[in-house]
Amino acid sequence: MPTYNAPVEDMLFLFDKLRDNKNYQEIDRYKEVTTDLVKNILEEAAKINENLILPLAKAGDENPTVLENGIVRTPPGYKEAYKKFIDDGWTSLSCDPKYGGQGMPRTVSAFFDEMISSSSLAFKLYSELTLGAYNCIHHHATDEIKDKYLPKMVEGKWSGTMCLTEPVCGTDLGLLKTKAKEQPDGTYKLTGQKMFITSGDHDLTENIIHLVIARASDSPAGTKGISLFLVPKFIVKEDGTIGPRNGISTGSIETKMGIKGSATCVLNFDEATGYMIGPKNKGLSQMFTMMNLERIVVGIQGLGLSEIAYQNSLSYAKERKQGKSNKNNSQNGAADFIIEHADIRKSLLTMKSIIEGERALCFWLSQQTEVSLYHKDPKIKQDATDLVSLMTPVVKSLFSDMGMEITSDAMQIYGGYGYTKDQGIEQLYRDNRITPIYEGTNSIQAIDLVFRKLVNNNGDIIEKYINTIMRDLNDNDKNLKPFVEKFKIYIEKLKVFSKWMKEKIKNSKDDANAAANDYLRVLGYVAVGYSWIKVLEVSYKDYSNNKGFYEDKIQTANFYFNRVLPRVESHYLSATTGSKYIMDFKFN
Amino acid sequence: MPTYNAPVEDMLFLFDKLRDNKNYQEIDRYKEVTTDLVKNILEEAAKINENLILPLAKAGDENPTVLENGIVRTPPGYKEAYKKFIDDGWTSLSCDPKYGGQGMPRTVSAFFDEMISSSSLAFKLYSELTLGAYNCIHHHATDEIKDKYLPKMVEGKWSGTMCLTEPVCGTDLGLLKTKAKEQPDGTYKLTGQKMFITSGDHDLTENIIHLVIARASDSPAGTKGISLFLVPKFIVKEDGTIGPRNGISTGSIETKMGIKGSATCVLNFDEATGYMIGPKNKGLSQMFTMMNLERIVVGIQGLGLSEIAYQNSLSYAKERKQGKSNKNNSQNGAADFIIEHADIRKSLLTMKSIIEGERALCFWLSQQTEVSLYHKDPKIKQDATDLVSLMTPVVKSLFSDMGMEITSDAMQIYGGYGYTKDQGIEQLYRDNRITPIYEGTNSIQAIDLVFRKLVNNNGDIIEKYINTIMRDLNDNDKNLKPFVEKFKIYIEKLKVFSKWMKEKIKNSKDDANAAANDYLRVLGYVAVGYSWIKVLEVSYKDYSNNKGFYEDKIQTANFYFNRVLPRVESHYLSATTGSKYIMDFKFN
Repeated sequence: MPTYNAPVEDMLFLFDKLRDNKNYQEIDRYKEVTTDLVKNILEEAAKINENLILPLAKAGDENPTVLENGIVRTPPGYKEAYKKFIDDGWTSLSCDPKYGGQGMPRTVSAFFDEMISSSSLAFKLYSELTLGAYNCIHHHATDEIKDKYLPKMVEGKWSGTMCLTEPVCGTDLGLLKTKAKEQPDGTYKLTGQKMFITSGDHDLTENIIHLVIARASDSPAGTKGISLFLVPKFIVKEDGTIGPRNGISTGSIETKMGIKGSATCVLNFDEATGYMIGPKNKGLSQMFTMMNLERIVVGIQGLGLSEIAYQNSLSYAKERKQGKSNKNNSQNGAADFIIEHADIRKSLLTMKSIIEGERALCFWLSQQTEVSLYHKDPKIKQDATDLVSLMTPVVKSLFSDMGMEITSDAMQIYGGYGYTKDQGIEQLYRDNRITPIYEGTNSIQAIDLVFRKLVNNNGDIIEKYINTIMRDLNDNDKNLKPFVEKFKIYIEKLKVFSKWMKEKIKNSKDDANAAANDYLRVLGYVAVGYSWIKVLEVSYKDYSNNKGFYEDKIQTANFYFNRVLPRVESHYLSATTGSKYIMDFKFN
Repeated sequence: MPTYNAPVEDMLFLFDKLRDNKNYQEIDRYKEVTTDLVKNILEEAAKINENLILPLAKAGDENPTVLENGIVRTPPGYKEAYKKFIDDGWTSLSCDPKYGGQGMPRTVSAFFDEMISSSSLAFKLYSELTLGAYNCIHHHATDEIKDKYLPKMVEGKWSGTMCLTEPVCGTDLGLLKTKAKEQPDGTYKLTGQKMFITSGDHDLTENIIHLVIARASDSPAGTKGISLFLVPKFIVKEDGTIGPRNGISTGSIETKMGIKGSATCVLNFDEATGYMIGPKNKGLSQMFTMMNLERIVVGIQGLGLSEIAYQNSLSYAKERKQGKSNKNNSQNGAADFIIEHADIRKSLLTMKSIIEGERALCFWLSQQTEVSLYHKDPKIKQDATDLVSLMTPVVKSLFSDMGMEITSDAMQIYGGYGYTKDQGIEQLYRDNRITPIYEGTNSIQAIDLVFRKLVNNNGDIIEKYINTIMRDLNDNDKNLKPFVEKFKIYIEKLKVFSKWMKEKIKNSKDDANAAANDYLRVLGYVAVGYSWIKVLEVSYKDYSNNKGFYEDKIQTANFYFNRVLPRVESHYLSATTGSKYIMDFKFN
């Protein structure tokens, strides 16, 4: 079974040394969240993840969730762990104190998201969707609804889901068929089938609060006729206690490649009572409040699985002797630890430099998310919103794709042992394989990025982003100079590629579409590179206070600039060849 | 369950139109292997694979091979299918007629290898290792041994294995511990443990002929003290009938990520009777006869799994409606088939252009293998041997890695459905995941390529290879010209990279080691590009005889040159940054 040591030191470094982000520091509400407080939280978080949650990964893989006589049963150990998990308050970390939450910023809760993704993604999903639903209700529902549902959800006694997908509509929600019929009392009766519903049913909580998109009887076809409904598994009575079962049943659960401890359900709604959330026919945009936060969390899942894969392959490389390294002079054929081999070191450094760069980027994105929600200046708030929107598909796709690369490279380091179930490494790979798919496939993310995020009503967002970076680059510092020079080559490439892309969006949409995935990657690698620049600035400035730690950062950044950033080149070359020959091709 | 249509048309095209390889045509023994004969064989092969073998994939995944009371039982249906498989003579396709084989060239048997890899890799492995063992015995054993063992192996009534790996030695066979004690009658008693032995035990054949490497009692340590032994599961009596059980038992079988129908065994040898094959202490080089052929076959496995993944994702893309394409003018939100979307088309063409290019490269390599074995001119024979040696690690690694990319991209096209077991797409991905690992991990292949294959006693092999290509490129032909011009950019890059590599091999081995995987990729992409050039030459020359087919080839090649070949650039940029910063890094 893989082991796990939560990277508390790196997280605290980010929190303490990179918090000095002007706009973020201007938010009042987190003034009391000190480094010491965060240290305590992260240390406790490390304990529960390393000890209680990590073993659930294997348990869930070996004993998948089952549907028995209409009841979904989670794997052995899940119930007990979940109880401890909510008793210790981990579901409420980032929630509003008004409803019982601890009011921590995303800069802290994102670290927790990473840790629990490393430990057991399948287990994590039971609480993750609750937070998604919480955010959506918190944003869009009336006070009455909030008071009735949120406290129990924050406490973790009730969980949540987001019910979007139907058999004929995944990506394309305009096709949805689930109907909502208005009743004389203002409630609705929902009928239809939803599928791929994560945590759609299970035995961990007393109630499940489904957020369902459906079409009201008198609404138009397409995406403009979709409304959002709250549909509880058990009706909640006036006094907040649990009443009769609602008209929702579990048709089946999916048998999947990985995350087998997570229940992925087909839910049948049969005249189920629902309450409309927010204005009619605006369901899609409300759902996207939840989807966007959720997409960043999916990126963090990829980061978490990458981290545990890296840790274990590093340990294995230090223990396994095989082959002679180039400095081995032994005459009796004695082998070296495989960590002595240049190729293995390169593989480990690729993982490390991507993981730590991603973590820094994610921290910056968490700060910007807080700015977008709570800054006093509406202009700054809007700018942050644009940046978060720009980076959301990038983080979702890049981190999940890198998660595939890194879990795969970790398996390679284990050789034949990596392919067996005993070591648990292949499970990381299978578990991570859902992340490029769910919450919108990575291709959908790329299309969202290109067609909706680069330029919006608020201006040329990508240009603003690039200009911010350019202004920020300091080539007067002799330490930073070699990094900045290398980085400039790629930011320049991003600039040229962005210009190409904006022109194609106007004049040749298929060219833009066919290049979207490559473009996302290029933006992603540059964004991670920029995060490394920020880390380097601190590393040189604060060098004498923690030499070993900063030297490690500087060398890791150096690897990233030498070996990872050049990937930009091929993506650019390949993507800008147009699409006519692709669209004209006749598939047999 | 995935469907499969063997790509007989493409295979026949290669066989018929690309057979005109000067050196290959000079071999006498295959004069009678006409296109008509091969057409018949491939059509029969398609039938047995599409109908009998394909269903075994799912059966094996759902009911893995088990070890019960010391007996290894294959999945339901395997026994019946195996009987039909050998009754129809499929194990004997490429074997020597002297021992009952059909004497087909590798140009034909490689097509069969591809088909059966598409259909069920786990089932294939039972006969694949038999052929490996057959080749090794055929090459190195005495006539007495050959007459005794080969006919039954060719018939498929007995199977074979190759027993190399031990718990502490996979890559590094110098560490092996299995001992062989010489007996007064000239036989040996073998004692030790072997692991990861594919088809190490099972219930499909009457006997299993293990080829085992071990150290004779008086042999030196390291790789120079390894000898090769034939160790049958049941002792074969003088008259060729089966005698008593030998001292071999199955300790356990591995539980794996994929190829669950294949038995991967721990074998315990306890004073097992063995017969030395070839000269003492030369076991490793003899085993490599088998390993090298086997490595090409592993590449073909990746190709086969890529083909079935492509076929199914293409069908799905034609059936699944989701989202509007850029030419959709529908006002009612009607969706298009996803094959209308540029990004999906790009993904499908990436698969197709890699698969067909690989198949052409593999055909050429099969021809060269035959030349290396049977050409009359020793100089031509040696040149072919060098080329085959150069390309063996490339085909093994590139095709297996591309198999991962392609099975993964196929899953992405299926979206959420791709992650469920029902569709069987995720199984292709899991089954293929062993191919970059076994028969030497892809990193080991890259190191083999760089340190042993580029330059050998016979000269500068890579330079000869590049020069042959350069001489062959025809830029006078106006049709070919745009392709040749693009291709020259990358062959030039390969040249520069090769020069860099040869210098580093001499002066800075760690630089070469850290760059080896990237170099292998670059050589691989260029080799596939060169195969496309050969296909293009025929396509233009023979155009009017089969316009539709050749137009498809030309467009697919065009895609490869535009979108796949540019990958070379980043590999080159990244790899040539040296390794000092990698070797100096201090891992915590």
